[in-house]
Amino acid sequence: MGIVISGLGHSASLAVNIASVGRWRLLRAEEKQFPDGEEYVRLRGSLRGADLYIVNSLYPPNDETLACLIAADAARSLGARRVTLIAPYLAYMRQDKRFRAGEAVSSRTVAGLISDRFDRLITIDPHLHRYKSLSEIYSIPTRVLHADKAIADWIGRKVKLPVLVGPDSESRQWVSQVAGLCDAPFGVMRKKRFSSTKVKSSGLDAKLVRGRDVLVLDDIISSGHTMAGVIEQALKLGAATAAGVGVHGLFVPGARKLLKGAGASRVVTCNTVANPTARIDIAPLIARAIGEDSK
Amino acid sequence: MGIVISGLGHSASLAVNIASVGRWRLLRAEEKQFPDGEEYVRLRGSLRGADLYIVNSLYPPNDETLACLIAADAARSLGARRVTLIAPYLAYMRQDKRFRAGEAVSSRTVAGLISDRFDRLITIDPHLHRYKSLSEIYSIPTRVLHADKAIADWIGRKVKLPVLVGPDSESRQWVSQVAGLCDAPFGVMRKKRFSSTKVKSSGLDAKLVRGRDVLVLDDIISSGHTMAGVIEQALKLGAATAAGVGVHGLFVPGARKLLKGAGASRVVTCNTVANPTARIDIAPLIARAIGEDSK
Repeated sequence: MGIVISGLGHSASLAVNIASVGRWRLLRAEEKQFPDGEEYVRLRGSLRGADLYIVNSLYPPNDETLACLIAADAARSLGARRVTLIAPYLAYMRQDKRFRAGEAVSSRTVAGLISDRFDRLITIDPHLHRYKSLSEIYSIPTRVLHADKAIADWIGRKVKLPVLVGPDSESRQWVSQVAGLCDAPFGVMRKKRFSSTKVKSSGLDAKLVRGRDVLVLDDIISSGHTMAGVIEQALKLGAATAAGVGVHGLFVPGARKLLKGAGASRVVTCNTVANPTARIDIAPLIARAIGEDSK
Repeated sequence: MGIVISGLGHSASLAVNIASVGRWRLLRAEEKQFPDGEEYVRLRGSLRGADLYIVNSLYPPNDETLACLIAADAARSLGARRVTLIAPYLAYMRQDKRFRAGEAVSSRTVAGLISDRFDRLITIDPHLHRYKSLSEIYSIPTRVLHADKAIADWIGRKVKLPVLVGPDSESRQWVSQVAGLCDAPFGVMRKKRFSSTKVKSSGLDAKLVRGRDVLVLDDIISSGHTMAGVIEQALKLGAATAAGVGVHGLFVPGARKLLKGAGASRVVTCNTVANPTARIDIAPLIARAIGEDSK
Protein backbone atom coordinates (compact mmCIF):
# COMPACT_ATOMS: atom_id res chain seq x y z
CA MET A 1 0.00 0.00 0.00
CA GLY A 2 1.85 3.08 -1.23
CA ILE A 3 1.68 6.33 0.65
CA VAL A 4 0.01 9.14 -1.29
CA ILE A 5 -0.28 12.74 -0.07
CA SER A 6 -2.94 15.12 -1.32
CA GLY A 7 -3.77 18.64 -0.13
CA LEU A 8 -7.06 20.48 -0.45
CA GLY A 9 -7.78 24.19 -0.43
CA HIS A 10 -5.26 26.40 1.36
CA SER A 11 -3.40 23.29 2.56
CA ALA A 12 -2.25 22.36 -0.96
CA SER A 13 1.20 23.91 -0.53
CA LEU A 14 1.66 22.30 2.89
CA ALA A 15 0.92 18.93 1.25
CA VAL A 16 3.63 19.64 -1.33
CA ASN A 17 6.13 20.26 1.50
CA ILE A 18 5.12 17.11 3.38
CA ALA A 19 5.40 14.92 0.26
CA SER A 20 8.77 16.47 -0.50
CA VAL A 21 10.18 15.87 3.02
CA GLY A 22 9.04 12.23 3.01
CA ARG A 23 9.57 11.62 -0.72
CA TRP A 24 6.06 10.31 -1.10
CA ARG A 25 3.85 10.50 -4.12
CA LEU A 26 1.89 13.75 -4.31
CA LEU A 27 -1.56 13.51 -5.85
CA ARG A 28 -2.86 16.75 -7.26
CA ALA A 29 -6.28 17.69 -6.02
CA GLU A 30 -8.59 20.42 -7.18
CA GLU A 31 -10.96 22.08 -4.77
CA LYS A 32 -13.10 25.01 -5.78
CA GLN A 33 -16.46 26.51 -5.01
CA PHE A 34 -19.21 26.94 -7.54
CA PRO A 35 -20.75 30.43 -7.59
CA ASP A 36 -23.59 29.16 -5.36
CA GLY A 37 -21.11 27.98 -2.71
CA GLU A 38 -21.14 24.24 -3.36
CA GLU A 39 -17.80 22.48 -3.11
CA TYR A 40 -16.18 20.80 -6.09
CA VAL A 41 -13.42 18.25 -5.45
CA ARG A 42 -11.34 16.30 -7.94
CA LEU A 43 -8.50 13.90 -7.09
CA ARG A 44 -6.24 13.64 -10.10
CA GLY A 45 -4.33 10.38 -10.43
CA SER A 46 -4.49 6.74 -9.50
CA LEU A 47 -5.62 5.83 -5.98
CA ARG A 48 -6.09 2.08 -6.38
CA GLY A 49 -4.80 0.44 -3.20
CA ALA A 50 -3.35 3.72 -1.93
CA ASP A 51 -2.65 4.69 1.67
CA LEU A 52 -3.99 8.21 1.19
CA TYR A 53 -3.32 11.17 3.49
CA ILE A 54 -5.65 14.09 2.77
CA VAL A 55 -4.14 17.31 4.15
CA ASN A 56 -6.74 19.98 4.84
CA SER A 57 -7.07 22.39 7.73
CA LEU A 58 -10.70 22.87 8.66
CA TYR A 59 -10.78 26.57 7.93
CA PRO A 60 -13.10 28.14 6.93
CA PRO A 61 -14.72 25.43 9.02
CA ASN A 62 -17.92 24.59 7.15
CA ASP A 63 -16.53 24.77 3.62
CA GLU A 64 -13.45 22.73 4.44
CA THR A 65 -15.24 20.15 6.59
CA LEU A 66 -17.62 19.48 3.70
CA ALA A 67 -14.71 19.37 1.25
CA CYS A 68 -12.95 16.75 3.40
CA LEU A 69 -16.03 14.52 3.65
CA ILE A 70 -16.66 14.78 -0.09
CA ALA A 71 -12.99 14.02 -0.83
CA ALA A 72 -13.00 10.98 1.47
CA ASP A 73 -15.97 9.45 -0.32
CA ALA A 74 -14.34 10.14 -3.68
CA ALA A 75 -11.05 8.56 -2.53
CA ARG A 76 -12.82 5.35 -1.48
CA SER A 77 -14.78 5.10 -4.69
CA LEU A 78 -11.49 5.58 -6.57
CA GLY A 79 -9.98 2.60 -4.75
CA ALA A 80 -7.99 4.06 -1.83
CA ARG A 81 -7.52 1.35 0.81
CA ARG A 82 -6.97 3.62 3.80
CA VAL A 83 -7.86 7.29 4.06
CA THR A 84 -6.31 9.43 6.81
CA LEU A 85 -7.28 13.03 7.44
CA ILE A 86 -4.42 15.33 8.34
CA ALA A 87 -6.19 18.41 9.66
CA PRO A 88 -3.34 20.55 11.00
CA TYR A 89 -6.01 22.88 12.37
CA LEU A 90 -9.01 21.01 13.72
CA ALA A 91 -12.15 23.16 13.85
CA TYR A 92 -15.24 22.75 16.03
CA MET A 93 -13.41 22.01 19.28
CA ARG A 94 -14.87 24.93 21.20
CA GLN A 95 -18.44 23.86 21.90
CA ASP A 96 -17.46 20.90 24.09
CA LYS A 97 -20.40 21.15 26.46
CA ARG A 98 -24.07 22.16 26.60
CA PHE A 99 -23.50 25.44 28.40
CA ARG A 100 -27.17 26.46 28.22
CA ALA A 101 -30.30 24.32 27.87
CA GLY A 102 -30.91 23.14 24.30
CA GLU A 103 -27.47 23.96 22.94
CA ALA A 104 -26.02 21.62 20.34
CA VAL A 105 -22.61 20.18 21.17
CA SER A 106 -21.22 20.75 17.69
CA SER A 107 -17.82 19.22 18.50
CA ARG A 108 -19.48 15.80 18.80
CA THR A 109 -21.34 16.12 15.51
CA VAL A 110 -18.27 17.13 13.52
CA ALA A 111 -16.17 14.43 15.20
CA GLY A 112 -18.84 11.93 14.20
CA LEU A 113 -18.88 13.11 10.59
CA ILE A 114 -15.11 12.77 10.30
CA SER A 115 -15.01 9.44 12.16
CA ASP A 116 -17.64 8.00 9.80
CA ARG A 117 -15.62 8.76 6.69
CA PHE A 118 -11.93 8.61 7.62
CA ASP A 119 -9.85 5.73 8.97
CA ARG A 120 -7.66 7.95 11.13
CA LEU A 121 -7.03 11.56 12.07
CA ILE A 122 -3.74 13.41 12.60
CA THR A 123 -3.84 16.96 13.94
CA ILE A 124 -1.68 19.56 15.64
CA ASP A 125 -2.41 21.04 19.05
CA PRO A 126 -6.22 20.76 18.97
CA HIS A 127 -8.10 23.02 21.37
CA LEU A 128 -8.64 20.46 24.14
CA HIS A 129 -10.31 22.09 27.08
CA ARG A 130 -13.02 20.02 28.75
CA TYR A 131 -12.17 16.98 26.66
CA LYS A 132 -8.96 15.42 27.88
CA SER A 133 -8.44 13.50 24.67
CA LEU A 134 -9.87 13.40 21.15
CA SER A 135 -10.94 9.81 21.81
CA GLU A 136 -13.83 11.20 23.87
CA ILE A 137 -15.50 12.33 20.66
CA TYR A 138 -13.62 10.63 17.78
CA SER A 139 -14.29 6.93 17.28
CA ILE A 140 -11.28 6.47 14.94
CA PRO A 141 -7.62 6.37 16.00
CA THR A 142 -6.28 9.90 16.38
CA ARG A 143 -2.79 11.23 16.76
CA VAL A 144 -2.05 14.63 18.24
CA LEU A 145 1.21 16.34 17.29
CA HIS A 146 2.68 19.34 19.08
CA ALA A 147 4.20 22.44 17.56
CA ASP A 148 6.08 23.36 20.75
CA LYS A 149 9.55 22.42 19.46
CA ALA A 150 9.04 24.16 16.13
CA ILE A 151 7.91 27.32 17.94
CA ALA A 152 10.75 27.15 20.49
CA ASP A 153 13.27 26.75 17.64
CA TRP A 154 11.89 29.82 15.91
CA ILE A 155 12.05 31.87 19.11
CA GLY A 156 15.60 30.72 19.79
CA ARG A 157 16.69 31.80 16.32
CA LYS A 158 14.77 35.06 16.02
CA VAL A 159 14.31 36.72 19.42
CA LYS A 160 17.07 38.27 21.53
CA LEU A 161 15.69 38.59 25.05
CA PRO A 162 12.51 36.55 25.01
CA VAL A 163 9.98 36.30 27.78
CA LEU A 164 6.88 34.22 27.14
CA VAL A 165 3.40 35.17 28.34
CA GLY A 166 0.35 32.92 28.39
CA PRO A 167 -2.96 34.83 28.40
CA ASP A 168 -4.85 32.38 30.63
CA SER A 169 -4.45 29.41 32.90
CA GLU A 170 -5.36 26.97 30.11
CA SER A 171 -2.18 27.98 28.32
CA ARG A 172 0.09 27.27 31.32
CA GLN A 173 1.20 23.82 30.30
CA TRP A 174 2.25 24.55 26.78
CA VAL A 175 3.71 28.00 27.51
CA SER A 176 5.90 26.45 30.20
CA GLN A 177 6.84 23.68 27.75
CA VAL A 178 7.91 26.11 25.01
CA ALA A 179 9.70 28.32 27.57
CA GLY A 180 11.65 25.31 28.79
CA LEU A 181 12.63 24.31 25.26
CA CYS A 182 13.99 27.77 24.40
CA ASP A 183 15.31 28.46 27.88
CA ALA A 184 13.24 31.63 28.45
CA PRO A 185 11.37 32.93 31.50
CA PHE A 186 7.56 32.94 31.32
CA GLY A 187 4.43 34.16 33.05
CA VAL A 188 0.78 33.12 32.90
CA MET A 189 -2.15 35.50 33.26
CA ARG A 190 -5.78 35.07 34.28
CA LYS A 191 -8.47 35.58 31.65
CA LYS A 192 -12.03 36.72 32.19
CA ARG A 193 -14.57 36.42 29.36
CA PHE A 194 -17.38 38.99 29.24
CA SER A 195 -18.85 37.94 25.86
CA SER A 196 -17.75 36.14 22.69
CA THR A 197 -15.64 39.14 21.66
CA LYS A 198 -14.89 40.75 25.02
CA VAL A 199 -12.15 39.21 27.11
CA LYS A 200 -9.52 40.58 29.43
CA SER A 201 -6.41 39.00 30.86
CA SER A 202 -4.89 40.34 34.04
CA GLY A 203 -2.03 39.69 36.42
CA LEU A 204 0.97 40.49 34.22
CA ASP A 205 4.15 41.04 36.24
CA ALA A 206 5.97 44.28 35.36
CA LYS A 207 9.30 42.93 36.61
CA LEU A 208 9.00 40.01 34.21
CA VAL A 209 8.44 42.03 31.04
CA ARG A 210 10.36 45.30 31.56
CA GLY A 211 13.00 45.77 28.85
CA ARG A 212 12.34 42.34 27.35
CA ASP A 213 10.98 41.06 24.05
CA VAL A 214 7.59 39.78 25.12
CA LEU A 215 6.02 36.94 23.16
CA VAL A 216 2.33 36.39 23.85
CA LEU A 217 1.58 32.73 23.10
CA ASP A 218 -1.84 31.29 22.28
CA ASP A 219 -3.00 28.18 20.48
CA ILE A 220 -5.51 29.95 18.21
CA ILE A 221 -5.45 33.58 17.08
CA SER A 222 -9.03 34.25 16.00
CA SER A 223 -10.44 37.72 16.69
CA GLY A 224 -7.11 38.75 18.21
CA HIS A 225 -8.85 40.42 21.17
CA THR A 226 -7.14 38.38 23.87
CA MET A 227 -3.71 38.79 22.36
CA ALA A 228 -4.11 42.51 21.60
CA GLY A 229 -5.08 43.16 25.22
CA VAL A 230 -1.98 41.42 26.57
CA ILE A 231 0.32 43.15 24.06
CA GLU A 232 -1.00 46.56 25.14
CA GLN A 233 -0.46 45.75 28.81
CA ALA A 234 3.06 44.43 28.22
CA LEU A 235 4.06 47.59 26.38
CA LYS A 236 2.52 49.77 29.12
CA LEU A 237 4.58 47.86 31.67
CA GLY A 238 7.78 48.67 29.81
CA ALA A 239 8.40 45.73 27.48
CA ALA A 240 10.97 46.55 24.78
CA THR A 241 8.76 44.87 22.17
CA ALA A 242 5.64 42.72 22.28
CA ALA A 243 4.80 40.15 19.62
CA GLY A 244 2.08 37.55 19.17
CA VAL A 245 2.83 33.89 18.51
CA GLY A 246 0.14 31.34 17.75
CA VAL A 247 -0.09 27.79 16.52
CA HIS A 248 -3.17 28.41 14.36
CA GLY A 249 -3.74 31.81 12.77
CA LEU A 250 -7.40 32.22 11.82
CA PHE A 251 -7.42 36.04 11.85
CA VAL A 252 -11.10 36.80 11.41
CA PRO A 253 -11.71 40.15 9.64
CA GLY A 254 -10.30 42.98 11.72
CA ALA A 255 -7.90 40.82 13.75
CA ARG A 256 -4.69 41.93 12.06
CA LYS A 257 -5.62 45.60 12.36
CA LEU A 258 -6.44 45.12 16.03
CA LEU A 259 -3.06 43.51 16.74
CA LYS A 260 -1.21 46.19 14.81
CA GLY A 261 -3.15 48.89 16.64
CA ALA A 262 -2.19 47.33 19.98
CA GLY A 263 1.47 47.79 19.04
CA ALA A 264 2.47 44.24 18.12
CA SER A 265 6.03 44.28 16.73
CA ARG A 266 5.17 41.14 14.78
CA VAL A 267 2.66 38.29 14.64
CA VAL A 268 3.87 34.82 13.78
CA THR A 269 2.05 31.50 13.47
CA CYS A 270 2.67 27.98 12.24
CA ASN A 271 1.58 27.14 8.71
CA THR A 272 -1.27 24.92 9.94
CA VAL A 273 -3.49 27.60 8.37
CA ALA A 274 -2.03 29.34 5.33
CA ASN A 275 -1.65 33.08 5.83
CA PRO A 276 1.07 35.74 5.60
CA THR A 277 2.11 35.22 9.25
CA ALA A 278 2.73 31.49 8.80
CA ARG A 279 6.50 31.50 9.20
CA ILE A 280 6.87 28.36 11.32
CA ASP A 281 6.84 25.28 9.10
CA ILE A 282 5.24 22.16 10.55
CA ALA A 283 5.66 20.02 7.42
CA PRO A 284 8.67 18.14 8.95
CA LEU A 285 6.64 17.38 12.09
CA ILE A 286 3.81 15.91 10.05
CA ALA A 287 6.16 14.04 7.73
CA ARG A 288 7.83 12.43 10.75
CA ALA A 289 4.45 11.24 12.04
CA ILE A 290 3.52 9.74 8.69
CA GLY A 291 6.90 8.03 8.48
CA GLU A 292 6.56 6.49 11.96
CA ASP A 293 3.02 5.48 11.20
CA SER A 294 3.90 3.55 8.06
CA LYS A 295 6.69 1.51 9.64
CA MET B 1 -45.83 11.95 19.62
CA GLY B 2 -46.59 15.65 19.22
CA ILE B 3 -45.63 17.51 16.07
CA VAL B 4 -43.10 20.27 16.67
CA ILE B 5 -41.88 22.69 13.97
CA SER B 6 -38.56 24.49 14.21
CA GLY B 7 -36.83 26.68 11.65
CA LEU B 8 -33.13 27.42 11.32
CA GLY B 9 -31.39 30.37 9.70
CA HIS B 10 -33.27 32.15 6.94
CA SER B 11 -36.03 29.53 7.12
CA ALA B 12 -37.14 30.63 10.59
CA SER B 13 -40.02 32.76 9.29
CA LEU B 14 -41.17 30.00 6.93
CA ALA B 15 -41.33 27.67 9.94
CA VAL B 16 -43.52 30.21 11.74
CA ASN B 17 -45.93 30.20 8.77
CA ILE B 18 -46.01 26.39 8.57
CA ALA B 19 -46.68 26.02 12.29
CA SER B 20 -49.38 28.65 12.07
CA VAL B 21 -51.16 26.97 9.11
CA GLY B 22 -51.14 23.58 10.82
CA ARG B 23 -51.56 24.87 14.38
CA TRP B 24 -48.55 22.92 15.53
CA ARG B 25 -46.17 23.81 18.31
CA LEU B 26 -43.35 26.07 17.16
CA LEU B 27 -40.02 25.54 18.88
CA ARG B 28 -37.75 28.55 18.77
CA ALA B 29 -34.29 27.79 17.48
CA GLU B 30 -31.21 29.96 17.45
CA GLU B 31 -28.66 29.58 14.72
CA LYS B 32 -25.69 31.88 14.46
CA GLN B 33 -22.10 31.84 13.33
CA PHE B 34 -19.18 32.54 15.58
CA PRO B 35 -16.70 35.06 14.17
CA ASP B 36 -14.52 32.16 12.95
CA GLY B 37 -17.41 30.71 10.94
CA GLU B 38 -18.41 27.83 13.21
CA GLU B 39 -22.13 27.19 13.54
CA TYR B 40 -23.96 27.57 16.84
CA VAL B 41 -27.37 25.93 17.22
CA ARG B 42 -29.75 26.00 20.16
CA LEU B 43 -33.19 24.41 20.30
CA ARG B 44 -35.23 26.19 22.93
CA GLY B 45 -37.94 24.14 24.56
CA SER B 46 -38.90 20.59 25.37
CA LEU B 47 -38.34 17.94 22.72
CA ARG B 48 -38.95 14.81 24.78
CA GLY B 49 -40.89 12.36 22.60
CA ALA B 50 -41.41 14.99 19.90
CA ASP B 51 -42.04 14.40 16.21
CA LEU B 52 -39.72 17.21 15.14
CA TYR B 53 -39.67 18.88 11.72
CA ILE B 54 -36.56 20.99 11.21
CA VAL B 55 -37.16 23.54 8.45
CA ASN B 56 -33.96 24.74 6.80
CA SER B 57 -33.14 25.39 3.18
CA LEU B 58 -29.61 24.32 2.39
CA TYR B 59 -28.42 27.76 1.37
CA PRO B 60 -25.67 28.85 1.72
CA PRO B 61 -25.06 25.15 1.18
CA ASN B 62 -22.12 24.36 3.46
CA ASP B 63 -23.16 26.49 6.42
CA GLU B 64 -26.74 25.29 6.40
CA THR B 65 -25.92 21.62 5.76
CA LEU B 66 -23.64 21.65 8.82
CA ALA B 67 -26.28 23.51 10.84
CA CYS B 68 -28.88 20.84 9.97
CA LEU B 69 -26.59 17.97 10.96
CA ILE B 70 -25.65 19.67 14.22
CA ALA B 71 -29.31 20.42 14.97
CA ALA B 72 -30.35 16.82 14.28
CA ASP B 73 -27.83 15.46 16.78
CA ALA B 74 -28.96 18.02 19.34
CA ALA B 75 -32.63 17.13 18.81
CA ARG B 76 -31.94 13.42 19.41
CA SER B 77 -29.92 14.09 22.53
CA LEU B 78 -32.78 16.28 23.76
CA GLY B 79 -35.21 13.38 23.38
CA ALA B 80 -36.89 13.89 19.99
CA ARG B 81 -38.30 10.55 18.80
CA ARG B 82 -38.39 11.29 15.09
CA VAL B 83 -36.50 14.03 13.27
CA THR B 84 -37.55 15.06 9.76
CA LEU B 85 -35.65 17.54 7.64
CA ILE B 86 -37.77 19.91 5.61
CA ALA B 87 -35.28 21.41 3.17
CA PRO B 88 -37.49 23.44 0.81
CA TYR B 89 -34.35 24.03 -1.26
CA LEU B 90 -32.12 20.97 -1.41
CA ALA B 91 -28.52 21.82 -2.28
CA TYR B 92 -25.84 19.62 -3.82
CA MET B 93 -28.03 18.04 -6.51
CA ARG B 94 -25.94 19.23 -9.43
CA GLN B 95 -22.89 16.96 -9.31
CA ASP B 96 -24.82 13.78 -10.02
CA LYS B 97 -22.10 12.06 -12.04
CA ARG B 98 -18.33 11.80 -12.36
CA PHE B 99 -18.03 13.94 -15.47
CA ARG B 100 -14.22 13.81 -15.50
CA ALA B 101 -11.82 11.24 -14.01
CA GLY B 102 -11.33 11.69 -10.26
CA GLU B 103 -14.29 13.98 -9.64
CA ALA B 104 -16.17 13.59 -6.40
CA VAL B 105 -19.90 12.99 -6.73
CA SER B 106 -20.83 15.43 -3.98
CA SER B 107 -24.57 14.76 -4.25
CA ARG B 108 -23.99 11.26 -2.86
CA THR B 109 -21.88 12.46 0.07
CA VAL B 110 -24.39 15.09 1.15
CA ALA B 111 -27.30 12.67 0.72
CA GLY B 112 -25.40 10.22 2.92
CA LEU B 113 -24.76 12.83 5.62
CA ILE B 114 -28.45 13.76 5.76
CA SER B 115 -29.64 10.15 5.59
CA ASP B 116 -27.37 9.23 8.51
CA ARG B 117 -28.88 11.85 10.81
CA PHE B 118 -32.50 12.37 9.79
CA ASP B 119 -35.40 9.93 9.72
CA ARG B 120 -37.00 11.48 6.66
CA LEU B 121 -36.64 14.29 4.15
CA ILE B 122 -39.27 16.57 2.63
CA THR B 123 -38.24 18.95 -0.15
CA ILE B 124 -39.68 21.02 -2.99
CA ASP B 125 -38.79 20.52 -6.64
CA PRO B 126 -35.25 19.23 -6.17
CA HIS B 127 -32.96 19.51 -9.19
CA LEU B 128 -33.37 15.95 -10.48
CA HIS B 129 -31.53 15.52 -13.71
CA ARG B 130 -29.66 12.23 -14.08
CA TYR B 131 -31.19 10.84 -10.90
CA LYS B 132 -34.80 9.88 -11.54
CA SER B 133 -35.62 9.87 -7.83
CA LEU B 134 -34.04 10.96 -4.55
CA SER B 135 -34.08 7.31 -3.45
CA GLU B 136 -31.08 6.73 -5.71
CA ILE B 137 -28.92 8.64 -3.24
CA TYR B 138 -31.01 9.03 -0.05
CA SER B 139 -31.41 5.93 2.10
CA ILE B 140 -34.24 7.47 4.17
CA PRO B 141 -37.85 7.97 3.04
CA THR B 142 -38.13 11.17 1.02
CA ARG B 143 -41.10 13.14 -0.16
CA VAL B 144 -40.94 15.57 -3.06
CA LEU B 145 -43.49 18.39 -3.20
CA HIS B 146 -44.16 20.55 -6.24
CA ALA B 147 -44.61 24.29 -6.39
CA ASP B 148 -46.37 24.19 -9.78
CA LYS B 149 -49.86 24.97 -8.44
CA ALA B 150 -48.63 27.79 -6.21
CA ILE B 151 -46.78 29.32 -9.16
CA ALA B 152 -49.73 28.86 -11.55
CA ASP B 153 -52.03 30.53 -9.00
CA TRP B 154 -49.71 33.49 -8.72
CA ILE B 155 -49.52 33.84 -12.52
CA GLY B 156 -53.30 33.60 -12.83
CA ARG B 157 -53.76 36.38 -10.29
CA LYS B 158 -50.97 38.72 -11.36
CA VAL B 159 -50.31 38.46 -15.10
CA LYS B 160 -52.66 39.62 -17.87
CA LEU B 161 -51.51 37.92 -21.07
CA PRO B 162 -49.05 35.33 -19.90
CA VAL B 163 -46.93 33.13 -22.09
CA LEU B 164 -44.49 30.76 -20.38
CA VAL B 165 -41.01 30.01 -21.66
CA GLY B 166 -38.72 27.21 -20.48
CA PRO B 167 -35.03 27.86 -21.17
CA ASP B 168 -34.11 24.25 -21.93
CA SER B 169 -35.51 20.81 -22.66
CA GLU B 170 -35.13 19.75 -19.01
CA SER B 171 -37.75 22.32 -18.07
CA ARG B 172 -40.35 21.05 -20.58
CA GLN B 173 -42.31 18.88 -18.20
CA TRP B 174 -42.86 21.38 -15.44
CA VAL B 175 -43.30 24.41 -17.73
CA SER B 176 -46.04 22.53 -19.59
CA GLN B 177 -47.56 21.55 -16.23
CA VAL B 178 -47.67 25.14 -14.93
CA ALA B 179 -48.94 26.39 -18.31
CA GLY B 180 -51.77 23.87 -18.19
CA LEU B 181 -52.69 24.87 -14.66
CA CYS B 182 -52.96 28.58 -15.53
CA ASP B 183 -54.24 27.99 -19.05
CA ALA B 184 -51.43 29.83 -20.82
CA PRO B 185 -49.47 29.03 -23.99
CA PHE B 186 -45.84 28.02 -23.59
CA GLY B 187 -42.63 27.36 -25.48
CA VAL B 188 -39.42 25.49 -24.65
CA MET B 189 -35.97 26.50 -25.86
CA ARG B 190 -32.72 24.61 -26.34
CA LYS B 191 -29.81 25.44 -24.03
CA LYS B 192 -26.12 25.12 -24.80
CA ARG B 193 -23.59 25.37 -21.97
CA PHE B 194 -20.16 26.80 -22.85
CA SER B 195 -18.80 26.98 -19.25
CA SER B 196 -20.12 27.18 -15.69
CA THR B 197 -21.20 30.81 -16.24
CA LYS B 198 -21.69 30.91 -20.01
CA VAL B 199 -24.92 29.46 -21.36
CA LYS B 200 -27.19 30.35 -24.22
CA SER B 201 -30.74 29.29 -24.99
CA SER B 202 -32.04 29.46 -28.54
CA GLY B 203 -35.14 28.68 -30.56
CA LEU B 204 -37.61 31.19 -29.14
CA ASP B 205 -40.64 31.67 -31.41
CA ALA B 206 -41.39 35.36 -32.20
CA LYS B 207 -45.06 34.62 -32.90
CA LEU B 208 -45.41 33.12 -29.43
CA VAL B 209 -44.06 36.08 -27.48
CA ARG B 210 -45.01 39.18 -29.53
CA GLY B 211 -47.19 41.54 -27.50
CA ARG B 212 -47.41 39.12 -24.58
CA ASP B 213 -46.24 39.12 -20.98
CA VAL B 214 -43.44 36.58 -21.14
CA LEU B 215 -42.59 34.60 -17.99
CA VAL B 216 -39.29 32.73 -18.14
CA LEU B 217 -39.56 29.77 -15.77
CA ASP B 218 -36.65 27.93 -14.18
CA ASP B 219 -36.30 25.76 -11.09
CA ILE B 220 -33.22 27.54 -9.69
CA ILE B 221 -32.15 31.13 -10.32
CA SER B 222 -28.48 31.15 -9.41
CA SER B 223 -26.17 33.36 -11.50
CA GLY B 224 -29.18 34.53 -13.54
CA HIS B 225 -27.26 34.11 -16.82
CA THR B 226 -29.69 31.67 -18.43
CA MET B 227 -32.73 33.69 -17.50
CA ALA B 228 -31.23 37.06 -18.45
CA GLY B 229 -30.37 35.72 -21.90
CA VAL B 230 -33.93 34.54 -22.54
CA ILE B 231 -35.46 37.79 -21.24
CA GLU B 232 -33.29 39.81 -23.63
CA GLN B 233 -34.32 37.64 -26.57
CA ALA B 234 -38.01 37.81 -25.69
CA LEU B 235 -37.92 41.61 -25.54
CA LYS B 236 -36.05 41.78 -28.86
CA LEU B 237 -38.76 39.61 -30.42
CA GLY B 238 -41.44 42.06 -29.32
CA ALA B 239 -42.69 40.78 -25.95
CA ALA B 240 -44.71 43.44 -24.07
CA THR B 241 -42.89 42.54 -20.85
CA ALA B 242 -40.52 39.77 -19.78
CA ALA B 243 -40.24 38.54 -16.20
CA GLY B 244 -38.35 35.74 -14.45
CA VAL B 245 -40.08 33.16 -12.27
CA GLY B 246 -38.19 30.55 -10.28
CA VAL B 247 -38.89 28.05 -7.56
CA HIS B 248 -35.62 28.65 -5.71
CA GLY B 249 -33.98 32.06 -5.78
CA LEU B 250 -30.30 31.78 -4.87
CA PHE B 251 -29.18 34.99 -6.64
CA VAL B 252 -25.42 34.76 -6.32
CA PRO B 253 -23.75 38.20 -6.22
CA GLY B 254 -24.43 40.07 -9.44
CA ALA B 255 -27.48 38.02 -10.44
CA ARG B 256 -30.11 40.66 -9.66
CA LYS B 257 -28.21 43.36 -11.50
CA LEU B 258 -27.83 41.08 -14.51
CA LEU B 259 -31.57 40.38 -14.64
CA LYS B 260 -32.43 44.04 -14.24
CA GLY B 261 -29.93 44.94 -16.95
CA ALA B 262 -31.55 42.41 -19.29
CA GLY B 263 -34.83 44.28 -18.89
CA ALA B 264 -36.75 41.98 -16.54
CA SER B 265 -40.01 43.68 -15.57
CA ARG B 266 -39.95 41.64 -12.35
CA VAL B 267 -38.36 38.57 -10.80
CA VAL B 268 -40.45 36.36 -8.54
CA THR B 269 -39.65 33.16 -6.66
CA CYS B 270 -41.16 30.91 -4.04
CA ASN B 271 -40.12 31.47 -0.43
CA THR B 272 -38.10 28.22 -0.35
CA VAL B 273 -35.10 30.54 0.01
CA ALA B 274 -35.77 33.81 1.84
CA ASN B 275 -35.09 36.85 -0.33
CA PRO B 276 -36.91 39.99 -1.49
CA THR B 277 -38.32 38.20 -4.57
CA ALA B 278 -39.96 35.43 -2.52
CA ARG B 279 -43.59 36.37 -3.15
CA ILE B 280 -45.00 32.87 -3.66
CA ASP B 281 -45.68 31.25 -0.29
CA ILE B 282 -45.16 27.48 -0.10
CA ALA B 283 -45.97 27.19 3.63
CA PRO B 284 -49.50 25.80 2.90
CA LEU B 285 -48.00 23.16 0.58
CA ILE B 286 -45.58 22.01 3.26
CA ALA B 287 -48.20 22.15 6.01
CA ARG B 288 -50.47 19.93 3.92
CA ALA B 289 -47.68 17.36 3.53
CA ILE B 290 -46.99 17.32 7.27
CA GLY B 291 -50.70 16.94 7.98
CA GLU B 292 -51.06 13.99 5.60
CA ASP B 293 -47.93 12.44 6.98
CA SER B 294 -49.11 12.47 10.58
CA LYS B 295 -52.47 10.83 9.86
